[in-house]
Amino acid sequence: MSRPAVHPVEAAPMTIEAPRVRMKDFQGMPGTTGGLFLRLCQFVFAVVSLCVMTTTLDFPSVTAFCYLVAAVGLQSVWSLSLAIADIYCLSVRRSFRHVGVISLFAIGDGVTSTLTFAAACASAGITVLVGNDLDKCNVNHCTRFMSATAMAFLSWFAVSPSFLLNYWSLASR
Amino acid sequence: MSRPAVHPVEAAPMTIEAPRVRMKDFQGMPGTTGGLFLRLCQFVFAVVSLCVMTTTLDFPSVTAFCYLVAAVGLQSVWSLSLAIADIYCLSVRRSFRHVGVISLFAIGDGVTSTLTFAAACASAGITVLVGNDLDKCNVNHCTRFMSATAMAFLSWFAVSPSFLLNYWSLASR
Repeated sequence: MSRPAVHPVEAAPMTIEAPRVRMKDFQGMPGTTGGLFLRLCQFVFAVVSLCVMTTTLDFPSVTAFCYLVAAVGLQSVWSLSLAIADIYCLSVRRSFRHVGVISLFAIGDGVTSTLTFAAACASAGITVLVGNDLDKCNVNHCTRFMSATAMAFLSWFAVSPSFLLNYWSLASR
Repeated sequence: MSRPAVHPVEAAPMTIEAPRVRMKDFQGMPGTTGGLFLRLCQFVFAVVSLCVMTTTLDFPSVTAFCYLVAAVGLQSVWSLSLAIADIYCLSVRRSFRHVGVISLFAIGDGVTSTLTFAAACASAGITVLVGNDLDKCNVNHCTRFMSATAMAFLSWFAVSPSFLLNYWSLASR
């Protein structure tokens, strides 16, 4: 008797996978139009703050202003990256669901928002010191310092919802 | 035939209520020893910051230092109140479960920690300006300013876990 070279194997049972439970898509979460809008706001405000501060050529003489430039620079890079990711998600009509990705976004948002807020507060403290307490706005670019600080605060205002939503969706899984 | 004045009514079925699902008690949440420890840390650091800053008698001349005094004052009152609530909870062996209470704690922690952090950053900016950029520590209480700022930062470090844990437990209900 010849032995067949091909042995029948037990067929794997065909299973229909249950649809995975999807998290609710709050507007403002990554991969939504609200999220993209928040990212673009963060990016625009951070870039405007960076540009306004760097046009005051004497900013390197104050540590807090250098720190502001670094923080809003980091913020703008971070927000632009996530805006591009959001645009990609929206174009292929998918959204971020992986817990690792959401954790990464939450941690990144937490770190960048803390840095931006710290820089904005330090700059605000110095701007108020120079403008109000010492009254030396005639020899300093008070208006530009104030504008850059205000833009950094606005950028922080736009990052906070992103952080809170990501952290919320991480906790509510 | 006499009519009975008392009619039998259908007895309500005796039901045993299912035990309510309890949230996990992470150490650090309100009503735990970890939570009480965090509250006491917040309170102590905030009070030390307040005392150190008020001993520099010229602090009212700088807006950011006045703001620091106000912020750590508020922080110490808030943390002391919640420490007392924690002590009460621990003494009667119960813990906070109501969603309204947890929301209140999360919002209060969020607000006070943001104010304390903002004040600490503003003070740090000015301290670095006076100490490093202008090099005028000989006519200012740089050491005390730095100590008060550092204590405010430590108080903020102790509030952040409280906020994150409360917000997490709110989201994971």
